[in-house]
Amino acid sequence: MKATAELQVIPIGTGVSVREEVKSVVTWLNDYDFIVETHASGTNIEGELPDILLAVEKIHQLMHEQGVVRMVSYLKLETRTDKVPTLVGKKL
Amino acid sequence: MKATAELQVIPIGTGVSVREEVKSVVTWLNDYDFIVETHASGTNIEGELPDILLAVEKIHQLMHEQGVVRMVSYLKLETRTDKVPTLVGKKL
Amino acid sequence: MKATAELQVIPIGTGVSVREEVKSVVTWLNDYDFIVETHASGTNIEGELPDILLAVEKIHQLMHEQGVVRMVSYLKLETRTDKVPTLVGKKL
Amino acid sequence: MKATAELQVIPIGTGVSVREEVKSVVTWLNDYDFIVETHASGTNIEGELPDILLAVEKIHQLMHEQGVVRMVSYLKLETRTDKVPTLVGKKL
Repeated sequence: MKATAELQVIPIGTGVSVREEVKSVVTWLNDYDFIVETHASGTNIEGELPDILLAVEKIHQLMHEQGVVRMVSYLKLETRTDKVPTLVGKKL
Repeated sequence: MKATAELQVIPIGTGVSVREEVKSVVTWLNDYDFIVETHASGTNIEGELPDILLAVEKIHQLMHEQGVVRMVSYLKLETRTDKVPTLVGKKL
Repeated sequence: MKATAELQVIPIGTGVSVREEVKSVVTWLNDYDFIVETHASGTNIEGELPDILLAVEKIHQLMHEQGVVRMVSYLKLETRTDKVPTLVGKKL
Repeated sequence: MKATAELQVIPIGTGVSVREEVKSVVTWLNDYDFIVETHASGTNIEGELPDILLAVEKIHQLMHEQGVVRMVSYLKLETRTDKVPTLVGKKL
């Protein structure tokens, strides 16, 4: 089942700037067969739902391996049966 | 890796009330080895991260099988390495 | 216009624990004519929409006055015209 | 106090497509002194915090005036005291 998603990642306790951590997330997402679009407030993803979920699990693991003690992520998922969901199709 | 999570499920195009759909979600979550706490704005979950992610995938599938055409879910995930995250530990 | 809401507050750069900051938020919310219900992942609020929005603005201000350098909040708002929205009415 | 924000609007009970409603939201936001950036999963906003909150209140009102019975919105707000928050500054 294909899905569109938005991922926001908030490492807690690492300092006021989280730019480097967020950059790592985008690099990791690009290892998958996703369409990835970053914007000022998060990262939009188009791909297979199980792959997106596995990527999010992996991102939590990798963040902790890099020394982040506490990780909060917000994942929005959208699926539909009337047509294949795409990021392009969701643009105004 | 253990996680705490909050899941909010919004079926779109099924009508103004989504109570029945949300009730199904809670029933399905109770099939897993989770601690599940419902509140007025969503459902809090404590469990293994991969299980939570699989449950969310399953919920999207089951909703569509029940006729929901479009499904949006919001999943907040929290993991930490300094102690085991629990719902009890997050209460004030 | 009455609304139900959920507020999640994440101070960034203050350390791994944000418990004290979250406790302050609940104290401030209790100064308003709201119904306030805390749970493991946030705080649910029932009240007049303009009051809820003013409270959120005030919370950002007060957090910064207490020394929080960076503040992220997630506010979910629900309004409806077919009946008065309440937290009680949203429980399963 | 200046803020960056992300707004996601979900009209419930209006049908599977919510494109027209979302377009109206962007039109209304452009009436304010904001920087507005739409993306596949929401709308990013840069402006004064009180103005953003007033705009969100107005959007709930206008949606209901256009016949939407139930409205859910997700608003993410970010403020900081070490520098002026901007959408440009949040891009990778």
